[in-house]
Amino acid sequence: MTKDWSGKKVRVHFDPDNIDTIVAEGENLLKAAIAAGAHIYASCGGAGTCGTCKVLIKKGEVESTRTEKVSEEEYEQGIRQACQSRVVTDLVVDIPVESRLETAVLSREAKIAVGGKEPTAAIATGWSFNPPLSKLFVKLLPPTSKDNVSDLTRLLRCIRRQYHLSNMSVDFDVVRKLPRVLRQKNWQATVTTLVKAVKTKAERRKPTIINIGPGNTSQKHYSLAFDIGTTTVCGQLLDLNRGKVIAEGIAYNGQISYGADVITRIAYSQKPEGLKQLQQAVVATINQVINELLAQRQSDVKHIGHMIVAGNTTMTDILLGLNPKYIRLAPYTPVANFFPPVKANSLGIRVGKHVYLSAFPSVASYVGGDIVSGVVGVGIHQRKKLTFYMDIGTNGEIVIGNSDWMVTAACSAGPAFEGGGIKHGMIAATGAIEGFDISPSSSEPEIHTIGGAKPRGICGSGLINIVAGLLEAKVIGQNGKFNTDLATKRIRKGSDGYEYVLSWAHETQTGKDIVITEVDIDNLIRAKAAMYAGYQTLTKSVGISNADLEQAIIAGAFGSHIDIEKSITIGLLPDIPRDRFIFVGNGSLTGARLTSFSTDILDDARKVALMMTNLELSERADFMNNYVAALFLPHTNADEFPGVSKRLAKVTARKSRRRLTV
Amino acid sequence: MTKDWSGKKVRVHFDPDNIDTIVAEGENLLKAAIAAGAHIYASCGGAGTCGTCKVLIKKGEVESTRTEKVSEEEYEQGIRQACQSRVVTDLVVDIPVESRLETAVLSREAKIAVGGKEPTAAIATGWSFNPPLSKLFVKLLPPTSKDNVSDLTRLLRCIRRQYHLSNMSVDFDVVRKLPRVLRQKNWQATVTTLVKAVKTKAERRKPTIINIGPGNTSQKHYSLAFDIGTTTVCGQLLDLNRGKVIAEGIAYNGQISYGADVITRIAYSQKPEGLKQLQQAVVATINQVINELLAQRQSDVKHIGHMIVAGNTTMTDILLGLNPKYIRLAPYTPVANFFPPVKANSLGIRVGKHVYLSAFPSVASYVGGDIVSGVVGVGIHQRKKLTFYMDIGTNGEIVIGNSDWMVTAACSAGPAFEGGGIKHGMIAATGAIEGFDISPSSSEPEIHTIGGAKPRGICGSGLINIVAGLLEAKVIGQNGKFNTDLATKRIRKGSDGYEYVLSWAHETQTGKDIVITEVDIDNLIRAKAAMYAGYQTLTKSVGISNADLEQAIIAGAFGSHIDIEKSITIGLLPDIPRDRFIFVGNGSLTGARLTSFSTDILDDARKVALMMTNLELSERADFMNNYVAALFLPHTNADEFPGVSKRLAKVTARKSRRRLTV
Repeated sequence: MTKDWSGKKVRVHFDPDNIDTIVAEGENLLKAAIAAGAHIYASCGGAGTCGTCKVLIKKGEVESTRTEKVSEEEYEQGIRQACQSRVVTDLVVDIPVESRLETAVLSREAKIAVGGKEPTAAIATGWSFNPPLSKLFVKLLPPTSKDNVSDLTRLLRCIRRQYHLSNMSVDFDVVRKLPRVLRQKNWQATVTTLVKAVKTKAERRKPTIINIGPGNTSQKHYSLAFDIGTTTVCGQLLDLNRGKVIAEGIAYNGQISYGADVITRIAYSQKPEGLKQLQQAVVATINQVINELLAQRQSDVKHIGHMIVAGNTTMTDILLGLNPKYIRLAPYTPVANFFPPVKANSLGIRVGKHVYLSAFPSVASYVGGDIVSGVVGVGIHQRKKLTFYMDIGTNGEIVIGNSDWMVTAACSAGPAFEGGGIKHGMIAATGAIEGFDISPSSSEPEIHTIGGAKPRGICGSGLINIVAGLLEAKVIGQNGKFNTDLATKRIRKGSDGYEYVLSWAHETQTGKDIVITEVDIDNLIRAKAAMYAGYQTLTKSVGISNADLEQAIIAGAFGSHIDIEKSITIGLLPDIPRDRFIFVGNGSLTGARLTSFSTDILDDARKVALMMTNLELSERADFMNNYVAALFLPHTNADEFPGVSKRLAKVTARKSRRRLTV
Repeated sequence: MTKDWSGKKVRVHFDPDNIDTIVAEGENLLKAAIAAGAHIYASCGGAGTCGTCKVLIKKGEVESTRTEKVSEEEYEQGIRQACQSRVVTDLVVDIPVESRLETAVLSREAKIAVGGKEPTAAIATGWSFNPPLSKLFVKLLPPTSKDNVSDLTRLLRCIRRQYHLSNMSVDFDVVRKLPRVLRQKNWQATVTTLVKAVKTKAERRKPTIINIGPGNTSQKHYSLAFDIGTTTVCGQLLDLNRGKVIAEGIAYNGQISYGADVITRIAYSQKPEGLKQLQQAVVATINQVINELLAQRQSDVKHIGHMIVAGNTTMTDILLGLNPKYIRLAPYTPVANFFPPVKANSLGIRVGKHVYLSAFPSVASYVGGDIVSGVVGVGIHQRKKLTFYMDIGTNGEIVIGNSDWMVTAACSAGPAFEGGGIKHGMIAATGAIEGFDISPSSSEPEIHTIGGAKPRGICGSGLINIVAGLLEAKVIGQNGKFNTDLATKRIRKGSDGYEYVLSWAHETQTGKDIVITEVDIDNLIRAKAAMYAGYQTLTKSVGISNADLEQAIIAGAFGSHIDIEKSITIGLLPDIPRDRFIFVGNGSLTGARLTSFSTDILDDARKVALMMTNLELSERADFMNNYVAALFLPHTNADEFPGVSKRLAKVTARKSRRRLTV
């Protein structure tokens, strides 16, 4: 590692992307891949701890540090962790299927995550259609010697007469092009206005003139709604004249190559130029989605006038170029909860110079604009009905409340729900095992993969289904340990302790057995326990019980894939009547879309962000107690899951050997 | 002129500036001089019509078109108009004294134009000291786990508690640096706020947070006031803690090399890149003045937080990058009368990124922010006293009114007051003849020059004094024609008709006789007639006469040099009691300074701009009649100038042969 590098340039070829790049000798191979746009997955952000960025060096030489993530056998085959390797000579590198970011999953997510699929029971209602962005066609009286007021005065006078809007602010760029534009089509022009600062009273909202163009272009009147997720970026092109979604797009967040979760991203942002790189990565993704949206409708970018984005606090900070450093340091103070609209262009987003980006307000470091957007989108603030809202993920967010009050909390569940920390875990891409059934007699599994491909790993929703299945079939006990008395070759001792073989090597893409280990199960139990303890702490803090929850809204791309019954079985979701559950998919995007259609909802977002009381779980002693009590399937206290407990008891009286008496 | 240029580079040396520059063969010599920063004067902006940019080619070859402005004798000596010449070979060029911009005059102007010299009788009063720019030192409570609100919420909460300011807007750049700055000096910081949008009610003015820095820097709290004149740029550095001017500076407007008056500048702005060049020229001048101001006090630019500028409509437009095209085309519509504050930095002004430039509102294309600033500065809007306000120059502006009403008009007097269009005219620089006395018996003159130097021309105020003197001594008649019967060698026939020799060749810097011609006198008569007809049309339009004017305020650098008695004698100023006149020098700068000290005055400026009714003189038939009637010394109607007429009549009963009967 102390070698002096000559600075000589070498060529690196990445397969199967078929990308060539020239780098200096000594360059880190992961960095080279990211810079070249090769789709490599590095969930720890290059720290060397996750082992997801393993590549095969087919030709040439790298200088590499071997960690425990690479077996001796792999090492001999030429497998290296890209993050632990420096380029020595010209290279040909193969990114194996396990280390690749797949795009196949995206179309699948899109079906669920976007556009009009939300049950109408859980969408904000009663708002009037009054988008913050407007287009006004104006016909000015040409100047005469009797009436030679300034161009701007003439314009404002005309808007006052035609649209009864007075005292408007004007962006300076509009003033700059005013003389030319007004004279271009005989004093007819189209003015674009935006409500930038929302006031509680509609009559006090003063729109600002942000653009003007010659002639009548009011028929082309679009805006963008975006959900900026840690993993995926979803966008919609909205026709504001018709109040409709006219195109939808989704892509992996380009930051994913710098790490899978917000904590790794924040850590990366503290490196020199790190924040800038992350910002550019997500902006590149946004630009990619915008291009797709425009291509779908063969629209011109110039007709887009506004952009509303919802994201968690870290994603919002990075996009806006705000330093997220203190989000991960106690006492977890974010930079700001409210963000003034900024010129999208100034962030690198390729839209017209006049387009502002409005980011959803957030509540706290771990309760961001995506949650506020979700709450507003599903209309919790509009109803008396006591609602439970949960966005499940590495960072799970929970909201409980109604139109009168709301409490919220975030808990770090760890990456298990996204396949992280799981021996053969993977993100929900093609080949991920998701469906699982098991024969109680033979303990033989029946598995289903995403896309019907040969299996290559287990995604988060699959993990829940597998663990619930193993539990119901008594292959594992309520403590998550394997019943080693069963007569099956599927249960065996592996390098991580006991494991269950889901697919034999000859059935898989990777050519290796795919297993679920006791460590994996333990990781899932910890993850679901964190979520459960989170909302249990919240409900207790406001003096209610699960049974009081009149409605349970499960949001998020992951949330829309999970099986409700199996999630209750493992103790992730509360054991309440099943008809109270509503899966809304991408609630965050719903909120962003609705605010694009209604300034009232935009105003609601501000109010909701202010009314949500955040509970810092790490500061609550009872959270830790609740967490420990939840480290069981479904829970140490059977009363918390009466339905599940009853069923498990009915199926068999035989108890797990280490089961606690409840 | 059709020659193909090879693109070869050649070297041009300018004396006495001692500046070398490399240009492509075929480059225009005037452009080369301007680009190199050689101080050359070109009052027509390079059209070839003024003859002020004559240079001596000492070495090398130019390709030049000879116009009538260059005599055959001059042409043989190697004198060329720089604007009509292209560089052919390496050159050594001498810019003769007549063609140079002098800086000597500037210190002289500065004495009159800046700082506290205004008679206190004519300055706005009764305003409270409440600058739009403020600095607030804040001590925040550090975050704890019980109080982990966002940095921005913490800051706003602290400002609310310490300063009782709520609902403040925040510039996004402030949010970006907030986490770092707040933690840098243990949660103590200094916040800079600016009132950007003035509201009529003080309690509704919401300042915006435009900057924040670590620790307490509230002791260093400066702003800038600027008057951007067509000819000169004057600036003051203001200490907002003490309400004082702490440094003053002045420089020629760098645009002067592109033409002397606003019309030539507007014409130039329509060339490709012309607007940008003019903008950069004035910005360079502003930067130069700022450097001087800071050097005077050894201050750091980072302590400057705001900048208020007043200028005529064209100067304001060009500075802000607005196209002034329609100012010179009927019906003379300006782009805007009110300008939102812009980041000074974005215009190229070298101040902190957070500094906004606020430009004074204007009334019309030819009644700009400098006049509004002047009116506000002298407080016309505060008093019932009927006031006459006049800014004399190439473009003369007149205001008549009081706290209840104001009318205004602009008239194009032509460049005579600044020495333009006068055979030996020059700007008020060293060597300009200003003082003039004449012996009624011998018709011999006694002259005084600026700086006491050998004469080299006649400046505008000198021209008034000379013509008044010649009139009183009956060397010219009231029609401006020479009395050729007088026995003096001083009156002779020259190339432009009759002329009077002010200085013989051996007495001058130029080595040539300096004369005043009948054409010169006619030009002055036209200029003063335009001004007089302007205010006569105004007074008549509101039904008052000169005698009703209770106060006459004469503003402008030129205005502060003229002799009141002699100006009345030629019919430029109204013949009212002399004690009603007040010379205020740079009223525009006074207004800019006062608004920097008081947001109330900033608000007044808006109100004044709105209350001023502009009369478009070119649209008034009576203006033309008044103009023709004023083409006489002092006027065809003796009743308009009772004092002067009486005196002239008393001195001699002999009438000019062609005098009209009145």
